[in-house]
Amino acid sequence: MLKGGYCGKILRINLASQKISKENLKEDVIRNFLGGRGLGSKILYDEVSAGVDPYSPKNKIIFATGPLTGTSIPSVSRFAVISKSPLTGGCLHSLAGGFWGAELKKAGYDAIIIEDVSDSPVYIWIYDEHVEIRSASEIWGLKTIDAERLIKKEIRDENAEILSIGPAGENLVRYACVVAGMTSYTSAQAARGGGGAVMGSKKLKAIAVRGTGVINVANPKKLKELTKDIIKLQTTKVKGTVSPEGFSRWGTPGGLEYINELGIFPTRNFQTGAFEGAENIGGNALDKYVLKHTSCYICPIRCRKIRLAKSGPSAGNVTDGPEYETCWAFGGQIGNNDPQLIIEADILCDSFGLDTISTGNVIGFVMELYQRGLITAIQCDNLDLRWGSREAVVNLIRKISYREGVGAVLAEGVKRAAEIFGGNAAYYAMHVKGLELPAYDPRGARAHGLGIATSNRGACHERGFALQELFGIPHWVDRFSIEGKGKLTKENQDRTAIYDSMIACVFSAFMTGGEIYALALQAVTGIEEFEIFNNLMLIGERIWNIERAFNIREGFDRKDDTLPKRFLEEPMPEGGSKGYVAVLDPLLDEYYLARGWDVRTGFPTRRKLEELGLKYVADELEKSGRLAR
Amino acid sequence: MLKGGYCGKILRINLASQKISKENLKEDVIRNFLGGRGLGSKILYDEVSAGVDPYSPKNKIIFATGPLTGTSIPSVSRFAVISKSPLTGGCLHSLAGGFWGAELKKAGYDAIIIEDVSDSPVYIWIYDEHVEIRSASEIWGLKTIDAERLIKKEIRDENAEILSIGPAGENLVRYACVVAGMTSYTSAQAARGGGGAVMGSKKLKAIAVRGTGVINVANPKKLKELTKDIIKLQTTKVKGTVSPEGFSRWGTPGGLEYINELGIFPTRNFQTGAFEGAENIGGNALDKYVLKHTSCYICPIRCRKIRLAKSGPSAGNVTDGPEYETCWAFGGQIGNNDPQLIIEADILCDSFGLDTISTGNVIGFVMELYQRGLITAIQCDNLDLRWGSREAVVNLIRKISYREGVGAVLAEGVKRAAEIFGGNAAYYAMHVKGLELPAYDPRGARAHGLGIATSNRGACHERGFALQELFGIPHWVDRFSIEGKGKLTKENQDRTAIYDSMIACVFSAFMTGGEIYALALQAVTGIEEFEIFNNLMLIGERIWNIERAFNIREGFDRKDDTLPKRFLEEPMPEGGSKGYVAVLDPLLDEYYLARGWDVRTGFPTRRKLEELGLKYVADELEKSGRLAR
Repeated sequence: MLKGGYCGKILRINLASQKISKENLKEDVIRNFLGGRGLGSKILYDEVSAGVDPYSPKNKIIFATGPLTGTSIPSVSRFAVISKSPLTGGCLHSLAGGFWGAELKKAGYDAIIIEDVSDSPVYIWIYDEHVEIRSASEIWGLKTIDAERLIKKEIRDENAEILSIGPAGENLVRYACVVAGMTSYTSAQAARGGGGAVMGSKKLKAIAVRGTGVINVANPKKLKELTKDIIKLQTTKVKGTVSPEGFSRWGTPGGLEYINELGIFPTRNFQTGAFEGAENIGGNALDKYVLKHTSCYICPIRCRKIRLAKSGPSAGNVTDGPEYETCWAFGGQIGNNDPQLIIEADILCDSFGLDTISTGNVIGFVMELYQRGLITAIQCDNLDLRWGSREAVVNLIRKISYREGVGAVLAEGVKRAAEIFGGNAAYYAMHVKGLELPAYDPRGARAHGLGIATSNRGACHERGFALQELFGIPHWVDRFSIEGKGKLTKENQDRTAIYDSMIACVFSAFMTGGEIYALALQAVTGIEEFEIFNNLMLIGERIWNIERAFNIREGFDRKDDTLPKRFLEEPMPEGGSKGYVAVLDPLLDEYYLARGWDVRTGFPTRRKLEELGLKYVADELEKSGRLAR
Repeated sequence: MLKGGYCGKILRINLASQKISKENLKEDVIRNFLGGRGLGSKILYDEVSAGVDPYSPKNKIIFATGPLTGTSIPSVSRFAVISKSPLTGGCLHSLAGGFWGAELKKAGYDAIIIEDVSDSPVYIWIYDEHVEIRSASEIWGLKTIDAERLIKKEIRDENAEILSIGPAGENLVRYACVVAGMTSYTSAQAARGGGGAVMGSKKLKAIAVRGTGVINVANPKKLKELTKDIIKLQTTKVKGTVSPEGFSRWGTPGGLEYINELGIFPTRNFQTGAFEGAENIGGNALDKYVLKHTSCYICPIRCRKIRLAKSGPSAGNVTDGPEYETCWAFGGQIGNNDPQLIIEADILCDSFGLDTISTGNVIGFVMELYQRGLITAIQCDNLDLRWGSREAVVNLIRKISYREGVGAVLAEGVKRAAEIFGGNAAYYAMHVKGLELPAYDPRGARAHGLGIATSNRGACHERGFALQELFGIPHWVDRFSIEGKGKLTKENQDRTAIYDSMIACVFSAFMTGGEIYALALQAVTGIEEFEIFNNLMLIGERIWNIERAFNIREGFDRKDDTLPKRFLEEPMPEGGSKGYVAVLDPLLDEYYLARGWDVRTGFPTRRKLEELGLKYVADELEKSGRLAR
C-alpha cells in the first residue's frame, strides 16, 4: 500500500466459472509500470503464455485505467484495452477517452481482468462494490448504441457508463472494436487490433459501470494547483491546427489539408499521397456540419465535434466524429470526397463496432484489387466497387459486420483476405504485422515510417508519433533525413508508453509537454521519483520491452519490423513527397542499437532486460532461444 | 377546485413573446370534458378560430394528460396532442403512450398550450415548477432519437422524458409525427394528422419534462383496490390474439393473419384485401425478431416488443415495434413480405419523425401510380418503384423527410400529391378528409367503414373502432349487415372519446371493459357521477360534437363524410370479403339521426348542442349559417 494515497484494486472475473475476485494492485507494479497500458501489458505477458489462440479461453482481455484517471487533472481520464490481437497474434493495446475510465476508477478499480469464455452471452454490471454477471441474451445482436440503451433500461440506471461490442465483435471480425459512451454522445473507441472480437469470442457483450467513490489522492492541494496550471497551458493561444487552439476549433481533421500538402495523405489505398479532394473533407469543410463541441471527462480543449449530415443520401446521420483518421479512411483511402458519407460511415462503424481505420483500409484494398482486375464484382456480391462508391461503403460495413457474402473474407483483415483472394493481392494489402495502416504514408516521414514498422501492435501511428517530423512538436526535425531517426523513434515510443499508462491523452500531452503530468503523477501517487520525467522514461522503456518480449515469445523478429513492399519499391508519384521511397534497414539498425537489442534478430538482450528489472522475462526468452546476448 | 383531490394546472407558453403562464384547470372543464383529448378539443375550439392556416402563428398545439395519467391505475398514462391538422384542415387529436404523459403530470401539469411561432428553433425544459425556453440551434436537424440524447446531455438529466420532432416535422411534412421516449426504448408516437409539422412550423423541436411530484388523489384507498382489480382483469387468461393474453404474447401484429383471412387486409394500395405474404409479416413471423417485451408506464399487458433485424440489408435495425398498422403500411400496402424491412422502415419513420400509416400509404400510392403508368420512374428520381422495393422504401422515407426530389410532392400527403401529379391519380389516393387510410378495408366491415368516413380527424380506425364486427368485442355483430350500424358507430365513437380523455389505452379499455376505469375516474377526481359509465357517455358525445363543430366551422359537411371512390365502385376481388363494396348513404342517414344532426348537411342541431351544454357553440355556428335547426 502506498503511503500517500493512490492504491487501487484489480477486479478479476472468470466468465466460465463466474468467479469474481478482487486483488490489491501492488505498489511495485505501479512503480514499474504505472497503470493503463503498462499495467495491462505486464498482466498480459505474465498471464497469457506463448501460442495461445486469441479466441481461445486462455486469452485474456484487460481493461485498465491509469493513476491519473478520474482525478481533476484534465485530459487524462482514459482507459486501455489490452489483449492478444486476433489481427497480429501479438500484443494488443488500445486507448480510449470518453467517460468510462473515470467511472470505473470511481467505482474503485484500476483494472478488470476478464478470463475464459462464457457459455452464453453475458454482460457485467459494476456498481461500486457490487459486481454482477448478467445474461445478455436480450441484448446480443444489437448495435453498440442500442445495447447501451437497452442495458440502461435493464439495470435501471441512466447514468451508468457502458462499453460494448456491436455485431462485428460478436461475429469475430478481426478488427472489431470496443465502444463506450454512444448514448452520451462522447463516445470512445478502443478501436485498433480487434479487442471487440476478443470480447465477442468470450461472449462478453458489455461492461456497465457506475462509480460513486472519491479517488484517494496523496497531495490534493498540489493536485489542485497542477490542475489549474495544465488548464492554463492548454488554453494558451498557440497558433496552428495542431495546437490546443486548433484542436478546439477544428478537432483532429484540422491538419488534414496540411498532411495532404506534405504529400503523405494516403490516397486510393496508398497509390499516391496527394488527394485531389482533400479540401472537401478537411477541418474547414467539416465545419459546416458541426452541431456542437464536446469533450471527454474533464478536458478544456473540447476537440470532439458532434457533426450532422444534413442532405443527400447520408442525411440524418450524426456522429461525435469523424476524427482525422476516419476522414482519411472513408475519404482519401477510398477516393471519396463527400464529407457526409464520411459522417455516415463513422456512425455505422461505431454502431456495428468496427475500427474505422482498418475498415476503410480494407475497403480501399478491395477497390484497388477491383481497379486492377484482380477481383471481379461477382466476387464482391456485385457491389459497385469503383473509387468513392457509396454503395460499397454502406454495404461492405454491414456485410463485414455480419460476415455476409464477401464480408466473411474481408472480416479477416487485409493480410488474411489477400491470402484468400490469392494472386498478387498481398502486394496491395497495406498492413504491418497484420494490422492495417493508418493515414500517413511512410514514404514522406522517416521516423514516422520506422515507428509504424516497429510498433508492437502492428501498423500504428500512435505508438511513436514523429510529431517532430510532421508538426515540429516540440521542435522540427527534417522528415526526409535518416540520421538519428532510430533514437528519435525509440524516445517517441517510450514517451508515448508513459502517456498511455498515466493515462494522458497523447494529443494534450505532446502539445503541453508531458513534464507537468509527471508532477501530477507524483501528487496523486505520492511516489516522489515520478515527478522527474526522465525517471519515467525508464518505465516507458520497460513497458515497450515487455510488450516486445510478448511478441518475440510469439515468434516475431526483425523480419516483422517492416513495411508493405509498395513503400520500399514505388517512389511517391506526385505531391510534396514526390520521388521518395521508404527507407528501412539503416533506420532499423540504428533503432535496435538505440534499444540495446540485437541488430540481426531484433531480439532484446539480457543486459537490457535486466537493466529494466525484467530478469524473469530474459530467463523465459532464453529458454525458448529467443534472447540475444 | 375539486373537493376531494384532483385538480391541476395548465401551462401556457407563447413562443413569440416567450411569455410563460400557469392557469388553474377549471372544475367544470373536468366535469364536462374530462381531460386529454376532450380538454384539448375544447381548448382548440375556443381558441383557434375558423380559417386559421395550420402553420400560421394563430394555430395552437396542445399537449394534454388525463385525470388518470400518472396514477397507479394501469394502462392509462397516455398523453394527447391536439391541434389543427395540416393534412385535413380540421381538428387533429393524436394519442400516445410511453412515459412522457406521466412525467408531465408529476411535474404538475394537465396540459401545455403552445401559442404563436418562435423566431428561431427552441425546445422547452420543464422541471416541476421550473419552465424554460431554450435554444435548439444545436439540436435542429437531428433525428428524434439523437435529439433526445443531445437534449439529455444539455440539460444534464438522463431521467428526463422527452418528446420531439425529427427532420420531417422541421421540414413541414404534413404527416410528420410527435415522438417521445426513443432513448428509453418504449417510444410513443402521437402519429396521425401532422402534429409534428405544427411543432415544426412553430420552430419547437422538443419538450423535455422531469416531474418529481405526487399526484393528488381524492380516494387513495379506493384507487389502490381498483388498481388491483384492473390488473386482475388484464391478466385473466382470455384466449385469442386480441385479448390481454394475445397482446402480451404477440403485441398488436397478433391479429394480422386473421384480418387477412377476413379479406380486409389492404394490399397494394387497397387493390385487394388478401395479401399472399401475410403469414410472413404477422405476429408469429415477427416473433423470431423479438429481443424483449416491454410496456408503457404501469401496464401489465406488455404488448410492446423490441424487435431486431438480424440479417440481410436491414440487419442491425432495432425498434420497439412494429405495430400491426406498421406491418401493414410497409407490408401489404407496399407488397412487401420481408419483416426485416418492416422493422427498418419502422425505426426510420420513428427517427425521421413520420407517421408510419401515412408514409406507407403514400409509398403504396406512388407504387400503384407507377404500376398503372400514371407516373414515370423519372418523376420519382429513378427509384425502383416496383411493389416491395426496398430501395423505394428506404429512399422515399428519407426524401420525404427532407422534401428532396419527389419527396417534396409526397410530403404533402396523397390528397395533395394526387392533385400535383394530376390525371386520374386522385382515384388512387386512399384518404378521407386528407388523412391517409389505415389497415382495414372498409368494404368488409360496415360500421368500421362508417367510422372511417365520419371520424373527426379523417380516415381513422381508432376513433370508432368497430371491434364488434371484427373481433366480437364485447359481442359479435355481423360485419356485412347495415341496420343499426349508424347507432353502433355513434356509440363506439363516444365511448372512445371517453377513453381518449381519461386517458385509457383503448386496447386495454375495450378488452377489460371501460366501466372499471369509470370507477377509477371517480376515485381520482372525487366527482361522484363519474362512477356511472353511462354518465360519461354524455361527455363522450359532447367531445365528439365540439370536434364536429370545429370541422363544420371550417367548412366541412356531409360530403366530407365519405370514402375513396374505389371502395364504393370496385367490388373486393377475392378473399373473405369477395364481391362486397362499401355502403355509405343509408349508414350515414342512420348515423346522423342517431347523432341528432341534420341528415342533409351533417350539421349539428341547436337542440343537440344545447342538450350537451354547448349553447355557445350553437350560437357561433348559427351566425355563420352552419347550424341545423
